[in-house]
Amino acid sequence: MSGSRVMLKRLASTVTIKPTPSKAHHHGPLPSSSFPSGYLLTGLHAGVKKVAGVPDLGVIVSTSEHPTAAAACFTRNAFKAAPVLVSEEILKDNRGRARAIVVNSGCANAVTGRQGMDDAWAMVKETDALLPPSMHKFKHETLVMSTGVIGQNLPISKIVTGIRSQAPNLSAETRTLDTDFSAWERAAKAFMTTDTFPKLRSRVFTINGVEYRMAGMDKGAGMIHPDMGPAGTSFPAVKQLHATLLGCILTDAAVSPRSLQTALTYAVDRSFNSISVDGDMSTNDTIVVLANGAAASTDGAQVKEIDEETDKAGYEIFKQELTDFAIDLAKLVVRDGEGATKFVTVTVKGAPTYKDAHAIASRISTSALVKTALYGEDANWGRILAATGSVPLTPSTPTSTPPIIDPSKVNVTFVPSDGTSSLPVLINGEPEKVDEVRAKEILSLEDFEIVVELGLSGDGEARYWTCDFSYEYVRINGDYRS
Amino acid sequence: MSGSRVMLKRLASTVTIKPTPSKAHHHGPLPSSSFPSGYLLTGLHAGVKKVAGVPDLGVIVSTSEHPTAAAACFTRNAFKAAPVLVSEEILKDNRGRARAIVVNSGCANAVTGRQGMDDAWAMVKETDALLPPSMHKFKHETLVMSTGVIGQNLPISKIVTGIRSQAPNLSAETRTLDTDFSAWERAAKAFMTTDTFPKLRSRVFTINGVEYRMAGMDKGAGMIHPDMGPAGTSFPAVKQLHATLLGCILTDAAVSPRSLQTALTYAVDRSFNSISVDGDMSTNDTIVVLANGAAASTDGAQVKEIDEETDKAGYEIFKQELTDFAIDLAKLVVRDGEGATKFVTVTVKGAPTYKDAHAIASRISTSALVKTALYGEDANWGRILAATGSVPLTPSTPTSTPPIIDPSKVNVTFVPSDGTSSLPVLINGEPEKVDEVRAKEILSLEDFEIVVELGLSGDGEARYWTCDFSYEYVRINGDYRS
Repeated sequence: MSGSRVMLKRLASTVTIKPTPSKAHHHGPLPSSSFPSGYLLTGLHAGVKKVAGVPDLGVIVSTSEHPTAAAACFTRNAFKAAPVLVSEEILKDNRGRARAIVVNSGCANAVTGRQGMDDAWAMVKETDALLPPSMHKFKHETLVMSTGVIGQNLPISKIVTGIRSQAPNLSAETRTLDTDFSAWERAAKAFMTTDTFPKLRSRVFTINGVEYRMAGMDKGAGMIHPDMGPAGTSFPAVKQLHATLLGCILTDAAVSPRSLQTALTYAVDRSFNSISVDGDMSTNDTIVVLANGAAASTDGAQVKEIDEETDKAGYEIFKQELTDFAIDLAKLVVRDGEGATKFVTVTVKGAPTYKDAHAIASRISTSALVKTALYGEDANWGRILAATGSVPLTPSTPTSTPPIIDPSKVNVTFVPSDGTSSLPVLINGEPEKVDEVRAKEILSLEDFEIVVELGLSGDGEARYWTCDFSYEYVRINGDYRS
Repeated sequence: MSGSRVMLKRLASTVTIKPTPSKAHHHGPLPSSSFPSGYLLTGLHAGVKKVAGVPDLGVIVSTSEHPTAAAACFTRNAFKAAPVLVSEEILKDNRGRARAIVVNSGCANAVTGRQGMDDAWAMVKETDALLPPSMHKFKHETLVMSTGVIGQNLPISKIVTGIRSQAPNLSAETRTLDTDFSAWERAAKAFMTTDTFPKLRSRVFTINGVEYRMAGMDKGAGMIHPDMGPAGTSFPAVKQLHATLLGCILTDAAVSPRSLQTALTYAVDRSFNSISVDGDMSTNDTIVVLANGAAASTDGAQVKEIDEETDKAGYEIFKQELTDFAIDLAKLVVRDGEGATKFVTVTVKGAPTYKDAHAIASRISTSALVKTALYGEDANWGRILAATGSVPLTPSTPTSTPPIIDPSKVNVTFVPSDGTSSLPVLINGEPEKVDEVRAKEILSLEDFEIVVELGLSGDGEARYWTCDFSYEYVRINGDYRS
């Protein structure tokens, strides 16, 4: 939607790119007591990245004496990268069990043909070899993840050397690492690509009187609009789908493999599948959860696993803890999106279904016009409405006509994050006389929320997290390989 | 998908925005003999836009003694602007007849409540009043279009004054205007917003030995990703939908109202609904066609209308001429997209259906990562593949599993527009050793084509036209209202 600024358009000009605000304060030391028991982990420079000393290889091992459950959600992209295909296969063969994770950054090992598959398997086998014989229950115990440029082969001999070098660090003698912040931080750094800070969080929770811990790390920055499902799933019947997002969540709770996957799928839909940096879906998106039972109570030698059928109440608490934690990790990815200067929550209410609300929130969150307006700190609700109206709603039955939005029932409100009053910009389809000074105040905040109330019958409500679209984004991605 | 350029990211810096290449050569005089007979038209400055003398109001009148058929495709956005709703109603009431068009730029009259509807009707009535009584067959004879900022009311008294001022220009005494290039050009200019040149084309064609003419004008620039259908249609069952695009096509052929609409719907799907500047769908998109029969042969006093049932062969020729002409007009919009420095054709072949091919071509054409790579002149086929793979294909029946892309059958090729040889970058899923110098040569052209061959069974093939994503786009849209 355009004005009459024709004269200005074709002139050469110089633009000073605002320094994107530092995000460094989103990372800091975490208490050792908040990290889960029974994990050893490390991060190192193996040589995938060119800059010496920058971590590009991470290894995580569950040393729990109990079986370790593993669950994962993988990208639904048709061009799944080699590490995705390999991890899917291992998880399936092991029926939801694995105790190690190996990750590299700097090269995605995607669209790399047979060599790529061989390389992913080599990473798995080398990491398997770090485990003492007592921990080998399956042919392979390691899940693999990669992130970086598409279409280039891994420098596999460097990676293999890097993995082998960690044998002493992962031996029984060095188990103090498992509650050491610096080890967790090194591992988190090994995930990073254009990320500006390592993304690491931890939390403590209680189920049935037992205290557990959960810690996780992830990375994002660009190609972030995940749509992930359990291994082997194809696209669900939704209208709009679109990271490399990599992450892992490690807990010392004991959860049955089946329930761990169910809880993760639920959590991912409401967290990682509800964020967008640029609307582009990656070939590598992977979130892995390990639950090693190291803090679980036992019944004789047998650990008691949380399960949705045998302990519904316990499971529901775990699922909610996992979801909240996944949301925390997902938000960090948006906050550190490529070129991002804003962190914006988009809430859609009053839709016929959650799916419709989610589709509209996704559409607003990916609109180039909305995102450039956010960068410009412009309360341009017209663009928000145009994006909202461009999403077809789902008919309640395949043969019925889809619900129709009645513009005279729609509200749009800007909600600041600083606790000051909200600013309605559209009430019942009628534009408010907007106080531009107040609008500017809200939009100059780093964090704020856009609430769209559709006023349709139904209580479909969804939340999405997005960032703005800046000169910096174009710079990062316009000369990426040069 | 990211690299390890972390250190560079948060620094303030100055970027010189390349002057986007001048598009002025895409507009020039057209021979008077190529304009259709029986139309009077004008463009003037009414005062919607602030800059004096810039046209912002256009009036087009068919003066043919025969009935004039009218057809249109309107945005499927839920927040249809007042002029869209009013034009839909008139077209429906008149069963596909109308003889005048009034258009303003500078203000979209969208989300303007009751006042907006009153204003749109006022534009219609004032234009109706320009017509001599002999031309009034219906209550209203005028279709209305608006483009510009959303949520602001029209300066309706200025517009009414502007329309009334044209009474002398549209009287029978001044009929020489109808083949005058300058009148057509003034009208085309009245459509413009951030467009940098007026978009006006004409062509001559022959059906059944009779020579006809067709001329048309359109505008675009931003919020361009139309999905338009006939009046009153809701969303079709497609997966991805996302301008203000305004345009009109005027012909002196005689076409029955029904067949005019059928031909237009077909043409719009393959032209305006296959272009994207920024992936955002407008509340105002409208394409109108008038067929006034001024050059048609007559049977007594009765004009012989082209109709798909009574003259299938004639109709097919008309439909193809209209489609090709609509493609020409649609391409002009992409070429003049906000901040665009490239004009890129995206062709997808070997899909199960046209719909699947169209959805994938659309997804590639709207990917921020693909578009920034195009701006950076980077043959980043990895981003093209990731976008391709993010589109779920349609199952052949509602209960069957959707087709799956086999990466080992996929080819990606860059085709230059200068007639030199193509550059395959991916053959059968294996990356080619790309000659980066040659790749840069192709990508530095203003025009080139990306061909994606999926290798699936089926002959679904679709073509989309898109542009790149530049600093200039962010500048235009990041400080739009300030």
